[in-house]
Parts: sequence; structure tokens; C-alpha cells
Amino acid sequence: MDLNADLAESFGRWELGDDEALLRIVTSANVACGFHAGDPGVIRRACAWAAREGVAIGAQVGYRDLLGFGRRFVDMAPAELTDEVLYQIGALEALAGAEGAEVSYVKPHGALYNAIVSHREQASAVVEAVHSYGRDLAALGLPGSLWLRLAEERGLRTFREAFADRAYTPEGTLVPRSEPNAVLTDPEAIAARCLRLARAEPIEAVDGSELEVAADSICLHGDTPEAVTIARAVRDRLVAAGTTPTPMIRR
Amino acid sequence: MDLNADLAESFGRWELGDDEALLRIVTSANVACGFHAGDPGVIRRACAWAAREGVAIGAQVGYRDLLGFGRRFVDMAPAELTDEVLYQIGALEALAGAEGAEVSYVKPHGALYNAIVSHREQASAVVEAVHSYGRDLAALGLPGSLWLRLAEERGLRTFREAFADRAYTPEGTLVPRSEPNAVLTDPEAIAARCLRLARAEPIEAVDGSELEVAADSICLHGDTPEAVTIARAVRDRLVAAGTTPTPMIRR
Amino acid sequence: MDLNADLAESFGRWELGDDEALLRIVTSANVACGFHAGDPGVIRRACAWAAREGVAIGAQVGYRDLLGFGRRFVDMAPAELTDEVLYQIGALEALAGAEGAEVSYVKPHGALYNAIVSHREQASAVVEAVHSYGRDLAALGLPGSLWLRLAEERGLRTFREAFADRAYTPEGTLVPRSEPNAVLTDPEAIAARCLRLARAEPIEAVDGSELEVAADSICLHGDTPEAVTIARAVRDRLVAAGTTPTPMIRR
Amino acid sequence: MDLNADLAESFGRWELGDDEALLRIVTSANVACGFHAGDPGVIRRACAWAAREGVAIGAQVGYRDLLGFGRRFVDMAPAELTDEVLYQIGALEALAGAEGAEVSYVKPHGALYNAIVSHREQASAVVEAVHSYGRDLAALGLPGSLWLRLAEERGLRTFREAFADRAYTPEGTLVPRSEPNAVLTDPEAIAARCLRLARAEPIEAVDGSELEVAADSICLHGDTPEAVTIARAVRDRLVAAGTTPTPMIRR
Repeated sequence: MDLNADLAESFGRWELGDDEALLRIVTSANVACGFHAGDPGVIRRACAWAAREGVAIGAQVGYRDLLGFGRRFVDMAPAELTDEVLYQIGALEALAGAEGAEVSYVKPHGALYNAIVSHREQASAVVEAVHSYGRDLAALGLPGSLWLRLAEERGLRTFREAFADRAYTPEGTLVPRSEPNAVLTDPEAIAARCLRLARAEPIEAVDGSELEVAADSICLHGDTPEAVTIARAVRDRLVAAGTTPTPMIRR
Repeated sequence: MDLNADLAESFGRWELGDDEALLRIVTSANVACGFHAGDPGVIRRACAWAAREGVAIGAQVGYRDLLGFGRRFVDMAPAELTDEVLYQIGALEALAGAEGAEVSYVKPHGALYNAIVSHREQASAVVEAVHSYGRDLAALGLPGSLWLRLAEERGLRTFREAFADRAYTPEGTLVPRSEPNAVLTDPEAIAARCLRLARAEPIEAVDGSELEVAADSICLHGDTPEAVTIARAVRDRLVAAGTTPTPMIRR
Repeated sequence: MDLNADLAESFGRWELGDDEALLRIVTSANVACGFHAGDPGVIRRACAWAAREGVAIGAQVGYRDLLGFGRRFVDMAPAELTDEVLYQIGALEALAGAEGAEVSYVKPHGALYNAIVSHREQASAVVEAVHSYGRDLAALGLPGSLWLRLAEERGLRTFREAFADRAYTPEGTLVPRSEPNAVLTDPEAIAARCLRLARAEPIEAVDGSELEVAADSICLHGDTPEAVTIARAVRDRLVAAGTTPTPMIRR
Repeated sequence: MDLNADLAESFGRWELGDDEALLRIVTSANVACGFHAGDPGVIRRACAWAAREGVAIGAQVGYRDLLGFGRRFVDMAPAELTDEVLYQIGALEALAGAEGAEVSYVKPHGALYNAIVSHREQASAVVEAVHSYGRDLAALGLPGSLWLRLAEERGLRTFREAFADRAYTPEGTLVPRSEPNAVLTDPEAIAARCLRLARAEPIEAVDGSELEVAADSICLHGDTPEAVTIARAVRDRLVAAGTTPTPMIRR
């Protein structure tokens, strides 16, 4: 099983998350590319730590919206989105390259992540960007999303992610954050669930029923105060059970 | 002789220069990278036209200053500048790559261009960026600048530029824009002078004396209304004299 | 009748429109506030010219989106939008004040203009901003829009605008720009139509039928090459007919 | 004695400082205006808390440099700086006004603060902005700075600040941060020193000699983890000694 987290989300004077600690835990780093978060120095340091730890680097591309942290949908033209995504991937690649690493996948961020679950033009625009980048980049995202489906149709490798700390409905969708119990907070419960995901065993949905979630990677959160504690608990549990996390991209 | 011009300096709704026309004339395109000008769509179109015309693509990197068009010195830390430059080169590379082209040199823009004539820390920071980019990028700039000297010491290929329409002092420096006759405006006079540069013949300094200017490339301006007319006159004169411009980078 | 146009849409190196010429023609200036266009220097000069010509100043507020020129819908929270609008109005007020003028109305720009025709939360958020600004600012916008309706309910003065150069359907809505004949281009035809609007006479819809358009102001475009010519033709026609334009706000 | 601190330095997702806690302690709030930090929502909340606590609001204007947090000198033209400062003051005023408060002074931030100690053109440009704002705004800054001297010459009220936690040379300048002992960290020592400042008694310079520092306000830092603890200790000491802090602006 792969463990991924959003990293390099600091910006200038503003610090967010503990990149160095998380990069000792995860196997895939979704590195912000400067449009919603991440400045070149922050990005480069994350890449350096990722390279040191053997963590795969993904481009966490987003809308050009620092103030909104990329969490607000922007109704932009597909061709413009394609170019904005290419720009971000290339920028990250240069900084990764200076640290002897390279970009190996793309995971869109925030409102763009949500949009391309179902917004065909934007999903297609992001796929187009990844495809035209020319190297063999993979796509990471929500199982069943248009983003992954169109990426697959275009010949890209695709990886599906599950969420370590989000409650699932019996139908396999996420319980909205506005509802109670939408987010799991107990590190041990989260770790136990991640072990089930790693073993391809069913997990418990919010109503107590069993749910099968096919996932290639588990998304851990990186920007909460407890992020490192939870991530560490998950990794320790997987390692203890003999299922040491490995980068999805190297399988 | 190589002819270079600043291109891709439009941004969103704002158009500046006639990229497509100039890319039929010059042999090296200094493509803005989004920090002082140039959005991803503008950049990509410039790269597409450059690729079509066989024009070499250079990264016109600058300070992060859209409002000031990169023309205001920013007293930033060298390590930050290195990362900012890498970010811009990579972003451009991705867009060039999508059009089947690649970045082959770096020419800093505006206040950064001026700063690294003599500002050692910033000159060194830009050289560091180009060097750590990993591919064999060349450096284009002012003859005698620290930027070119440090680039050379670091093992980079360097190219010196002369200015088609700027008056020179007898000592070989540019007449400041604040003085009368600092800028030549007659297309035929400019073309005649460029031919002399192309033939490695001395040109006339502002006081009428002869001046030797060793140059690998001639910088044409791209953002004035007369830019295309002048550039066309220069090219036509060179071609007519049997010195058809060729990209410096391919020599 | 009032004549309004969007002004101060240059930004740094990038020039757009001929503010000084248009400010000799219009009676209300929708001054960009820096979020989608307009830098403080451009804004201040527009205010100085407006003050000199006795033109009323309106805040042309928009989404924080320079690259998209405010023409892309941003799905932002209403409370954030309220604060963003207040910020823009205040910024403009300070620059107007330095030229002895003041802001007297608000006309949202681009995608925000379109959104608040029907998007209740955003329309309400903009009204809230104008109301909480504390001075007696008016609202200018599309007849029948939620923006004007909610503004009126909140006790603001409201003004309706017609478009000088846009074709109308028989139902009184604008013919989409994607359709043929959506935009009128003949200055004399536009001027004749504006005179009918000024006299509260029906105009001709796209199908030739008569259409009554109740308007307090006519919107002239400011950013096309022909903008000044058309605006001048409209004003000359109105003046010649004895209906000299006057600022809506002073009625 | 007045106590001032920099506030509203969060931006979107990124939180910095505990504005609400500090606004229960200080008497003057230097509110960031969005150029180096502070978004409209953050600014408005700071203004609301300031209004509730009777804290005076100052415009903490800075260079347009989010990434550098306004800490990098930008070599901009004076006229542009004047307009940039006006823009920021007005933006803040609108948000303060929506909370029933108003801007009463200006304290430049970061690199601009440092520049206008001695950079005549920029100091004059900021004074020009404050003067042309039209209301009776005061100037807060470093004793002996050009900023305060030119402001006074222009007829503005001026206030001098001392630093609660910075070591002073025997000559009365600040010990550079690069030197050891440049910053005091013990809350009680800082509080004791602030009481001496409040009583207009000499304080101890870094070499142990006595130093007279004439100050109208003491600057407390707002963005360190210990900021609130130190600020609280200072206030408590002043109150216990019968020198309850009051806003400088109301004297």
C-alpha cells in the first residue's frame, strides 16, 4: 500500500504542516506547485527531503488562488487550465531535478480535485496537460472520478486513493464534512482501518455495514496539528503487520 | 549573427507585442516565464510559433513583480532567487515541451538583468539556478557583466548581446535612456548598424568615434509599435548582405 | 440620460483603453479597483480626470483574478465576497479622495456582474458590502437582476443600464455574443439607438420588433479600438438632440 | 504609554499570531493591509476586535510582496509608492468602517519601515500618501527616522516607538539581529524594561550603560509563539505600577 499526503503547503512567512516529519512516513508526496500554496524554496526543500527518503513526488496542481488555498472552484476555460497545469508540473520538475529527483504523478488539489470528479471539460483539460507533458506521469485521484477514467482512456497509469480519516457512506462515497462523524480522529482507529485497506479487506461504513474500497494509496492529511501523530500510527501499524508501505509508482 | 527579442509579454486580457510576427524574424526568443509577464497560454503560443519557425527558446526570467513588469530591483536572498529562477525555467520548459520544443538558454529580464551586471550575490544565484537545472543551458547577457563571467566560470556556454537601437558611449556602455539620442529610431540606420555588428565591424559611438562591440546576438525590442518594422528591416538587411541570422545556440 | 464606461483597466506596463478621452465623453466612470484590473496609479489618474470633467466615479469591483480579468466565476463564500468588495471600494475611495473626488456608486464587473444577476448568495454579499460601507452608495446593474432587487430592498438607490452596442432579444435580454449580430458596430446606428433610449422611446430588437428598455444609464464599451469613436458619436447625438448626458447620481 | 503590535498578518489558509488575544492587551493595532499580509476577512476581524476593545487602528502598509512578507526592499518610484500606500489605507478604512471603527495612524511594515528611516524619496512618498489621505492620520515609526521628520514637517502628528524586546546600543540604535543578545526573551525582564520606558526612565543598553529612549509607544511582537505571554506580562506590569496603557492617538 502507498501512503500519500499533501506537502509543501507553506508559503513565505507562513508555515503549514511538518514536511520533514511527514516525508519520513509517507511514500508519495503530493507537492504543492505554487498556485494555491508552496513557494519555490518550500517546494525545493520538500523535494530534497523526498529524495533523501525515497518518497515519490507528485505534482499537486491547483487553481491559481493563493487566498482561497485552491479551495474555490474557478470556472476557467479548458485550454487555459491545461496550460496552467503544465506550467505547474514543469516548475515542480525543475526544483525536483535540482535535488536529483523527478515528478512521477499528478494529484490535483482542492476545488480542482473535486471539480474533475464530474466536470468533463476540466477533467479532460487536466488529462490533456499530463498527457502532453511527455513523460510517463501517472494520475492519482478519487476512484470512479472522470479524472481517472479519462486519464486511463488516454493511456495514463492511474491510481485510486482512499481516505484514512474520512467516514464512508454504505455506497462508498465520503460522508460530507458538514455531517457529524464525517472525520475520524482516533489515531489507532484510523491505523486499524488503514491496515484493512492495505490488506484489501472491507472497512466499516458510517452505518456499521461492510464496505469494499479498492485503493492503491491512502491519503493522510498533512496540515492538522495531529497529522504527524496519525500518519506515524498508520505507518507503524502497517509495518508491524508486515505490509510496509511502498510507493505506488514503483510497483 | 543571432537576433533575439523579448516575447510572450502579454498577460491575460492585456496584449503586448506581436509575437507571431517577431517569431518570423528573430532567431532566439526570450520567452517571459510568468513572473513579470507572460501567462501559460501566451507562453505556450510563443513556444509553438518558435518551434514552427525554428527559433531557439530562452527563459526570460525575472523578479516576481507583475505590476512593475520586473523593472524594479527586489533585494531578495540569493537562495530564494535561485529557486525562483529554477521554477520559471521549469514552467517554461513544460510549455515548450508540449509544443515539441525546449529551452536552450536563459536571459534575465529588466531589473534582474541590470542587477546581475554587478550584484555578485544575485548574479551568482542566477548562475546557480541555471547550472543546477541540469541540462546544458546557455547564458545570454551584457558583455562584461558578472552574470556572464560567473556563468563562464561555472562552465556554462555564454553569449554576449549588443543592442540594435541603443546609443553607445565611446567606452562601450549604453547611453542612459534619460539622455538625448539614447535610442535610435530610424529603421534603416538601425539595420545598417546591425549589419556592421554582424560583420564584426566597428560601429559609431554617440560621439562619432569608432567602437568595437563583440556580440554573439543582437537584441531587438519587441514591445514598441514600431518593433516589427525595425526587426524586419534588420533581418532583411542581414539577409540581403548574405549574413542570414542563425540561432547562436546552434553554432 | 447617463453614459457609463469601464475605465482604469490598464495594469502596470499594460495599457488598455483611452481613459482620458473617454472621461471627456461619459458621465459615470466605472473605475476598476485593482482586483481584476487597475493599479493604484492608473486608478488615481482616472479619478483625477473624472474629477476634472465632473464625471461620477463608481467602484467597478470584481473577483481577485488578474489573469482572468475578472471574467471567470469564482465560487467563493458570501462573507469573503463582502469583505473583498469592501476592500476594493475603500481602496478606490482613498485614491479618488486624493484627487478631491469620491465614490458614488458600485457596478460589479465581468463574471461577478453576471453571477449576481441570479446567484442569490453572491448578490446578497455584494449588497451587504455596499450597505455596510456606510455612505450612500448607489447600485448600477442589469434591469431585473437580483443585484438591483436586493439592493433596493436594502434601501440603496439603484440604477438600470442598457447596452449601447448589444442586440436585444424581443424579450429584452441580450443576444449572446456567440450568435451573429450580437454586437452593433456602426457608430451612427449605435448613436441613433442611444438617442431613443435617452428619450425613453422603444428600440428595435434583433427580430425587428419594438422593445421598451427602461434605463437610467447607457453602458459604452471602453476597451476596443473604436471605443472612443463610438462613445463620441453617442454623446454628440445626444447633445445635438438637446439631451445632454448628465450623471445619474446627481439626478 | 501606548502598546502597539502588528496584527492581521494571517492570509487565507495561513494563520499567524493570535489577534484576538493581543487585542485585549495592546492599545494600538498595526493592521496589515493585504499587500504583505492580511486578507480582507482577517483584516475585518482584527478591526472588529479592536473596536470592541477600544484599540486604535493603524495602517500597517507595506510593499506588494506576499511571498517576501514585505521584508524585501523594492526599488519603486516614489509616485507609485504614494498610490500604493493610499490604496492600502483606504482598503483598511472600509473594513474598519464596517465595524464602526476608523484608521487613526500609519506605521509602515518590514522593508518599507527600514527603507524610510533614510531613503528620502520613499519616506517622502509615504508622507505624501498620508497627507493626501485628507483625514488627520498620525505617523508612527522609529525615532530620528526621515519618515517621522518629514511627516512632522508636513504637519502630521508623529509618534516614536521603542522596542520591548530588542537590545539597544549605547548610541540608541538597535543591535542587529545577527549579533548575540540582540533579542530579549525573558518576559519579566522585558516587562521591567517597558515599565522604565513608560516612566521615561533610562533603560540599560547592551553594554550595561544607561540610555534614554524617548518613546510614545512600545512595539510588542505579535507573530512569535511567546508573543501573547510577553505582551500580557508587559501590560500587567504597567497596570500594576499604575501606568495603564492608553492609545497614543487619544492623548
